[in-house]
Amino acid sequence: MTVTGYAAPLTDMRFVLEHVVDIGALAALAGFEHADPATVIGILEEAGRFFAEQLAPLNRVGDVQHSRRNDDGSVTTPEGFAKAYQRYVDAGWPAVPFPPEYGGGGFPWVVAVAMQEVMTAANMAFSLCPLLTQGAIDMLLHYGSEEQRETYLSKMVTGEWTGTMNLTEPQAGSDVGALTTRAVPADDGSWRVTGQKIFITYGEHDLADNIVHLVLARVPDAPPGTKGISCFIVPKVLVAADGSLGPRNAVECVSIEEKMGINASPTCVMAYDGATGFLVGEANQGMRYMFKMMNTARLSVGLEGLSLGERAYQQAVAYAAERRQGQAPGASAGSAIVDHPDVRRMLLTMRAQIEALRCVAYLTAECMDLAARHPDASVREARQELADLLTPISKGWGTDLGVELTSIAVQVHGGMGYVEETGVAQHYRDIRIAPIYEGTNGIQAIDLVGRKLGLRDGAAVTELLDAIAATAAEAIGAGDDLNVIGIALDGAQHALRQATTWLRQASADGRHDDVLAGATPYLRMAGVVAGGWMLARSALAASAIQGEATFTDEFLAQKTVTARFYATQLLPQAAGLLPAVTAGVEDLAAARF
Amino acid sequence: MTVTGYAAPLTDMRFVLEHVVDIGALAALAGFEHADPATVIGILEEAGRFFAEQLAPLNRVGDVQHSRRNDDGSVTTPEGFAKAYQRYVDAGWPAVPFPPEYGGGGFPWVVAVAMQEVMTAANMAFSLCPLLTQGAIDMLLHYGSEEQRETYLSKMVTGEWTGTMNLTEPQAGSDVGALTTRAVPADDGSWRVTGQKIFITYGEHDLADNIVHLVLARVPDAPPGTKGISCFIVPKVLVAADGSLGPRNAVECVSIEEKMGINASPTCVMAYDGATGFLVGEANQGMRYMFKMMNTARLSVGLEGLSLGERAYQQAVAYAAERRQGQAPGASAGSAIVDHPDVRRMLLTMRAQIEALRCVAYLTAECMDLAARHPDASVREARQELADLLTPISKGWGTDLGVELTSIAVQVHGGMGYVEETGVAQHYRDIRIAPIYEGTNGIQAIDLVGRKLGLRDGAAVTELLDAIAATAAEAIGAGDDLNVIGIALDGAQHALRQATTWLRQASADGRHDDVLAGATPYLRMAGVVAGGWMLARSALAASAIQGEATFTDEFLAQKTVTARFYATQLLPQAAGLLPAVTAGVEDLAAARF
Repeated sequence: MTVTGYAAPLTDMRFVLEHVVDIGALAALAGFEHADPATVIGILEEAGRFFAEQLAPLNRVGDVQHSRRNDDGSVTTPEGFAKAYQRYVDAGWPAVPFPPEYGGGGFPWVVAVAMQEVMTAANMAFSLCPLLTQGAIDMLLHYGSEEQRETYLSKMVTGEWTGTMNLTEPQAGSDVGALTTRAVPADDGSWRVTGQKIFITYGEHDLADNIVHLVLARVPDAPPGTKGISCFIVPKVLVAADGSLGPRNAVECVSIEEKMGINASPTCVMAYDGATGFLVGEANQGMRYMFKMMNTARLSVGLEGLSLGERAYQQAVAYAAERRQGQAPGASAGSAIVDHPDVRRMLLTMRAQIEALRCVAYLTAECMDLAARHPDASVREARQELADLLTPISKGWGTDLGVELTSIAVQVHGGMGYVEETGVAQHYRDIRIAPIYEGTNGIQAIDLVGRKLGLRDGAAVTELLDAIAATAAEAIGAGDDLNVIGIALDGAQHALRQATTWLRQASADGRHDDVLAGATPYLRMAGVVAGGWMLARSALAASAIQGEATFTDEFLAQKTVTARFYATQLLPQAAGLLPAVTAGVEDLAAARF
Repeated sequence: MTVTGYAAPLTDMRFVLEHVVDIGALAALAGFEHADPATVIGILEEAGRFFAEQLAPLNRVGDVQHSRRNDDGSVTTPEGFAKAYQRYVDAGWPAVPFPPEYGGGGFPWVVAVAMQEVMTAANMAFSLCPLLTQGAIDMLLHYGSEEQRETYLSKMVTGEWTGTMNLTEPQAGSDVGALTTRAVPADDGSWRVTGQKIFITYGEHDLADNIVHLVLARVPDAPPGTKGISCFIVPKVLVAADGSLGPRNAVECVSIEEKMGINASPTCVMAYDGATGFLVGEANQGMRYMFKMMNTARLSVGLEGLSLGERAYQQAVAYAAERRQGQAPGASAGSAIVDHPDVRRMLLTMRAQIEALRCVAYLTAECMDLAARHPDASVREARQELADLLTPISKGWGTDLGVELTSIAVQVHGGMGYVEETGVAQHYRDIRIAPIYEGTNGIQAIDLVGRKLGLRDGAAVTELLDAIAATAAEAIGAGDDLNVIGIALDGAQHALRQATTWLRQASADGRHDDVLAGATPYLRMAGVVAGGWMLARSALAASAIQGEATFTDEFLAQKTVTARFYATQLLPQAAGLLPAVTAGVEDLAAARF
């Protein structure tokens, strides 16, 4: 009864890449010429094979063994992790989306995101090491000096060295501005960094020869709060001028956390004791730099909900097909539980939301690619705004759904779902971190209503709503099967528009606590509607290409089934959230806790 | 930052017992004369002290240490459990609700339920031992022979011996009728029971001298399926005629499961190898007996959602008051996170649903008491029907909320919520079993729409809907503060009525798969509306007794705040579920997995 297999959902991924977002169009952009659809699909097939074979089998091993800190401060990852990491590096996977000048593959971000989906599904705890490295690479690409890039980047792009992000301190979590780690200048132009950081993912490990820590700290006389934060490179092992590794730096992992999940990922308390650091960019600009790279990191975390949802879904489907209990309506003998309507509801609820999540995540990444590369400045700007709007939605809604989807998968397994041996409980425990880190989902919601709705004085969100309305109109006009989808989507879009208008007005009136009070239900509402939008587009696309050879008719017909189920049975939740968005702060303020 | 304290919410419990349900009226019934409100409140205060002091501190110990099976088949519970259990027995707590003729306290079931709320919140894994014993007692009280009761009951009522329920086998979970354990008659009138049972809670342990297993098995030539199931008493240690303990019976714990939570509760695989058993009641009537006692067991499991929700809420409030991050709107300096509107939304969302759950659970228990004791047969019948309707709702909605509430509490804690040391992660892991066992929530939903809506040809559910409508009307007429509550409740009641009518019609038309397809969203909808109903009654009651000395004005005013928040911000979910209830099976059937 143990079902732990995972196969990359390549057909679904391909359908979304080719027909919901448009990787063909991306390949027409300067720098992406080599990323034609056939090449991309080939890469993803290979990635799917690699991650499923090399990483998926280590998922449970990692959960059972945990990463362990040794007395000397070193950290030992679970059996097989170091070897798998080496293979991952040898195969060249880390480099795929990064610039060719540092040894990268120069592929669009949406390709990296599709690859990440698979890697994370195969082994979320493993995937966090590349994920944090990606964040550090991103930071250095944008803000590192020529010399810093030369010293660190190519080693990080290949995965030979890994990276970390050091923000959190005990008193400074969501409130990054409260951090107290300090950096003082040394005579040689470097800095001495001192302080303690917590929750540092892969802060120490045995996968690579060096770890490039990016550490937020305060320089002498820095202004208080977020305006006085600077970013430093603090390598675990100092790098000599010729690129060779020198002595150990004064940074140490002093303990690792015992967590609910992602046990193979060492969550470290890091002590910096006059460690040698190198300022990135200018002093006191660290928060600005961080914000710049947050979109990609937040999208990647949102993706974790998709990944673990998909993996748990595959297990649930396999279990439901195999497990026999009772007799389904119309059956003449014992039935597999997949034949029971209530179990089918659980599976279809999972599938519909997984497909919606995938479309929204890939769309967000496509927007980032267009924002970076499109020749037309107005397109770049509009796509950047859409990416900015969709990022907190992908992160917040995506990770909340990750929790809900893995919970449904546990439920499909019945008592076996609660037993660790089955493996599905691990996904449920692993994913629970995702709504918390990289900005709690509350922070995402506040970002959405506080910053993103105001982009271009509200025009950005209006354009998004108009695009949803246009898809609804298209579906309404597209005939019987799609008509109900369009009607439901249009209703949901109207509710979201009403909520948006209310929040924009409250904001204009200076009723900021009313805006904050509505943030979380608004984010959920926006996610539910964005998902419905994307599934409607998916059904329209499937209907348009019916008969083409790439996808079977059955596959394409199922897109309509899924979209219709979502539109008629899940999307009505959106209107149910409107009263909570527009209630204002009154009752929240009146409550005494 | 570790906050693991728990205090029984005595003021809330008292308010519900005295003013939402009516323990005063129960004390007027024959047999309950001693259960006057003052006595009941006194008992609960004492219970609150005992469980908080003796059991709450063992909760994390139990999670870390687990119950462990030794090589000889014995099971060792975590440090302190055996001593705590002994104190629990010595203090007389197990006996409170059971009949005086077997040494019980003869208190109403609603008092037992209030006590259980506290015991479970203090230590869910511990509470499962008394919970299963309660089920076994219930069965023997109803169906045991005079001799069986004499031999076993008084020892079980005092807690000196514990009980188990042995239903599940690997191939027989929700489908109990598929079980294959067999019993053959012996010459002396006893039986020899052979087979393997799984998921047996406290099937073996070191808390008591004997364990009375109730085992479902098939006698020779039994009809197939549920009609051929018989129930046997199989004591761990055989009992001599004089009541003294004899030799060990041929029953053994062969392994225990590694689970996601409730680690202190040993979940045993039990092997019966020609074990001596004693038939309870008549052969082939086991399922009927089980159904009879399911209501109390299912209500108790539903209560687990309330208990862990309450405990997690207390921790979340304490953490939010202590943890300082950022600056709330209008604050001049750093704020405790409890001052941020988004955190207040999380806390109030928890509190509102916890209070709603408590009311519904206590109401269900009160119905059971009235059904058992009321002098008027028509009242007994109507209350039994209401208990029958509310039981699957309490279980299904209550345990789903338990998962959601503990998840919110994790979220309030941010990163610390994911770290095991904080303790809140344990509640989240522990409660995840509750939607699964004692009939999965899918089974509860099917029970609700398949059996319960048809009670008295639909008149029972119509009376419930009418009662909700009457409360709505009362609130609408009760003035400003309560008016909006009434309006929202009336809208939700209409939606639930529409869903009910649709399901009844589908049932009448023989469209059973349409009924099954709508079961789960209907149960949720019914729970959400029942909760709104109870909170409206709570607000009305609070408004009526404003100024009385027992409760502070502030406490009573908060009942209105909570009810209004629930009515205006959470209750609208109900209408959002209507389309899913009434969608029919079409898309579920069309999906290919």
